[in-house]
This record gives sequence, structure tokens and C-alpha cells, in this order.
Amino acid sequence: MGTTLDAAALRRRIRAGEHNGNTSGLAPGYVQCNLVILSGRYAADFLRFCQLNPKPCPLLAVGEPGDPTLPALGEIDLRTDLPGYRVYEHGVLTGQHGDISALWQDDMVGFALGCSFSFEEALLAAGLEVRNVTRGVNVPMYRSNIACAPAGAFVGDMVVSMRPFRPADAIRAIQVCTRFPAVHGAPIHFGDPGAIGIGDLAAPDYGDAVDIGADEVPLFWACGVTPQVALEAARPPLAITHSPGCMLVTDLRNAQLAVL
Amino acid sequence: MGTTLDAAALRRRIRAGEHNGNTSGLAPGYVQCNLVILSGRYAADFLRFCQLNPKPCPLLAVGEPGDPTLPALGEIDLRTDLPGYRVYEHGVLTGQHGDISALWQDDMVGFALGCSFSFEEALLAAGLEVRNVTRGVNVPMYRSNIACAPAGAFVGDMVVSMRPFRPADAIRAIQVCTRFPAVHGAPIHFGDPGAIGIGDLAAPDYGDAVDIGADEVPLFWACGVTPQVALEAARPPLAITHSPGCMLVTDLRNAQLAVL
Repeated sequence: MGTTLDAAALRRRIRAGEHNGNTSGLAPGYVQCNLVILSGRYAADFLRFCQLNPKPCPLLAVGEPGDPTLPALGEIDLRTDLPGYRVYEHGVLTGQHGDISALWQDDMVGFALGCSFSFEEALLAAGLEVRNVTRGVNVPMYRSNIACAPAGAFVGDMVVSMRPFRPADAIRAIQVCTRFPAVHGAPIHFGDPGAIGIGDLAAPDYGDAVDIGADEVPLFWACGVTPQVALEAARPPLAITHSPGCMLVTDLRNAQLAVL
Repeated sequence: MGTTLDAAALRRRIRAGEHNGNTSGLAPGYVQCNLVILSGRYAADFLRFCQLNPKPCPLLAVGEPGDPTLPALGEIDLRTDLPGYRVYEHGVLTGQHGDISALWQDDMVGFALGCSFSFEEALLAAGLEVRNVTRGVNVPMYRSNIACAPAGAFVGDMVVSMRPFRPADAIRAIQVCTRFPAVHGAPIHFGDPGAIGIGDLAAPDYGDAVDIGADEVPLFWACGVTPQVALEAARPPLAITHSPGCMLVTDLRNAQLAVL
């Protein structure tokens, strides 16, 4: 398949089982989301966690309990429209699925969270180089020592992603990302990794290391892996998320997320 | 006199010879400008220089040749409304005056350029600490190795001002100043001073050194001393500027300069 399908057409192919790989780079221009599905008080606590920690957990849509649709983001069925899902029981990964229709429960709530794909597109459109894109690898991510505000059982430190820039480009990157608070927004730190508890940039906790030029500084963004870490800490009896790289593709355009 | 006079009232006192000191901190909320007055082809070249180098030379108003008023900025007479002027002949300072009525020529053009007072007010309003304000000293300024685009005889490297911040505050400072392109806008560099040709932050070329915390990074802004340096290089037969700290106080409010 090509990369020129629009979001709805791509979702139809995924729903029909005709596409089951990564969504990265597909349906360019459209917002892709991290997905978390929870039930009962865990859903209520997670909603509060997201509202308390909007930079790592920017909520784009929340479903009604038991309703697998998210009409604000398109004609979506959360049970079938992602190419891959992960199932966690008591915080432990216990399965991977291409369809979760059999697992859906009548009090489940779907949470769609903004993802860095959207602001990376804006950075590239601004003529900036995004190192992980250039190198064709996953962005390096690190557990920081910045504590998230806790909500119920959801606790943890913020996970951050890192992209290196020369200072003048870093200033431009801050300006570009400031326009997109719904997808992590401006960086939360730059420079000394130790200042936010990161020991070694060459050894990311998630993703792949990237090279950093002598004239570059690392910029750190709040990362959507943060809710994943909080989820593992909360140990809900059952939770479902997207598989890494297998995102919820929405009808929303990245450009629509710009606040100005 | 108090600091609660509005801009027009302060200008009237200056015009009447009742105030002849610095304008810093007076008429808070109102835009204060750097002033350059030139004649003939030097005026034409300087206008081009400003348009080529908007970050160090943000033009807020240009007068008609021979006309000492700047109606866009208020009921202003450039010959009398600044507390202090400097006169340069062939690029060399030859005099200081409290009034330049006797020096005004019928082809003189007045240029009003934005000044850092405006964005410092915005930074303070955002709850950020501006070190030179806290310490009660002039901001430290340095000759960088960033070449300005030349126009006629006007050439030179950019002069930059420096204010230190912790990284998270630096990101906020970039956001705040981005709203004010008419008063130098976002910083042009941060971090390593050597990357822009600055040898020793403790030895500024103009102004006063300030302390920088171990957890802080220096942010560098394009500075309104840049046109002064270009003026000295151009060596026009006659040029008049404000005296340092004795600015043109306008009826424009700093908040009006925000582009969003």
C-alpha cells in the first residue's frame, strides 16, 4: 500500500485486517494517537492523572464508558481500528492482539493521547532536521527524575524523548512546538541531562540512541510513554494499549492542533 | 518625580527641561525606543540596514526627511523630547546635548528602534527573574561574530545582550519574547558563548557582568547597540543618537507590540 491513503481509508484497511504493521509515516498530515483503555475506578483515576499531567499525557479524546467509538476523532471503533494492541493484566504484559472485540467490556473507557509524530511533522515542515527521522530509528526516550502528579494508583516519573539541535534551531523548535500543546507542546528541558536525572544519553531506556553533534544540545520533550509507566505502576486488573508504533489514526489533521 | 507619570506627561517634563536623567523604569508599560538621526544617503542606507537586520534593528517608526515628529508613536518632537543626545561626527562622539534644536537639518531622518526594556517587562510579568534587573545593573552586552547584512557603509557584527536562566525558564523566556518581534524578539543563541565568538562572559564589551548560576545557561538576544556599532563604522559626517539610558518614550504600550 502507498502512503497517500487518507486516515479514514487507512483505518478501513486496518479494520478489514489488510494492514497490521506500523502506522508511522502513513496517512501523512493526520493525527495519530496513543491509546489506553481502562475500566471502572482505574479509568476515573487515569483521567485525573492525564488532567494533572497534560504535557506527558495530552488528552485528545475520552470515550463514554462502554462505548468503543470516539466520534470527535472520526468514525472510529477502538476494538478493531488499530493494527496492534497490547493487553496488560495487573500491570504485566500478557498478550498482543490485532483485534480486541472479544476483550471489550461494558465499562471500558478509551483514552486517545497526542503523540510526537504530530510535532515532528511540524518541525520537519519548518525545515528543521529531526535526528531520529534522519537516522530512521525510534526516538531515544529516558526515564527522568521529574515526578508526575499522582492520581489514585497512577504514579511515576516523567519519561522524556530527546532530539538534538544547534541552539538557533532549538529556539525555532521551541517556537514550533509551542503551537502544539495537544501533542506534548514545547520541550520541558534542554542541555544537561543530569539536571533531570538522566545518566547517559547513549543508553536510552526506550527507543534508540542517536548521535549528537559537538555544536548541538539535547532538547527533551514530555513523552507519551509516561502513561505507560504509570499504568504499569497502577497494576489495574486489565488494561489495553496500542502496540508500539501501531497507533490510532484519526481524521484530525495535525495542522488543526495548532493553537495559533 | 514619581514613576506613575504616563508617557506623554513624562515627555512634556523632558521637553520643558524638568527631567534630564535616565528614562529606565519611568512611564512603566510604555514603549521606549533607541533613536538614530541621519541625513541624505546615510539615512537611506541605514533604513536598508535596519530592514536587512530586523532582530538587532527593529524599526518601530521612521520620520519623513526634515520632519522631527513621529506621529505613529505619539505627539513627539525628536529635537527636544529625549533627556540626552549624543552627537557623532565621522563616527566619533563629539558632544552630548539635552536638546538638538540648533543641530536639526532639513534633510534629517529620525529612526526609532525597539529596545529590550519592552521584552524585559514581559519577562518580569511572566514571573521570570531578569538578572540585570534583580542586580540593578545594566545588561551585559558582547560583540558577537555574527555578521550583519551590510547596507552601504553600514557594516558590523551583531552585538548581543545576555540574560541567564535555568533551562525550563529559558524555554518560557523564548516563548514570551517570541511574541515581541518589534523589540528584538526571541533569543538568537543560548549556551556556549564561544559558538558566537564571545570569549569571556565576565568581561562584557558594554554594560555590566552578571552572575550565572551553575544550573543556568546564558541566553543571547540581538541588541540595539548593534546599529551604534554600524554607525561608527559608517562614519557619516553627522549623526545623532539618544544617550545611553535616555530613551525616546512613546505613547505606544508594550502590550500593543505583542503579535499574539
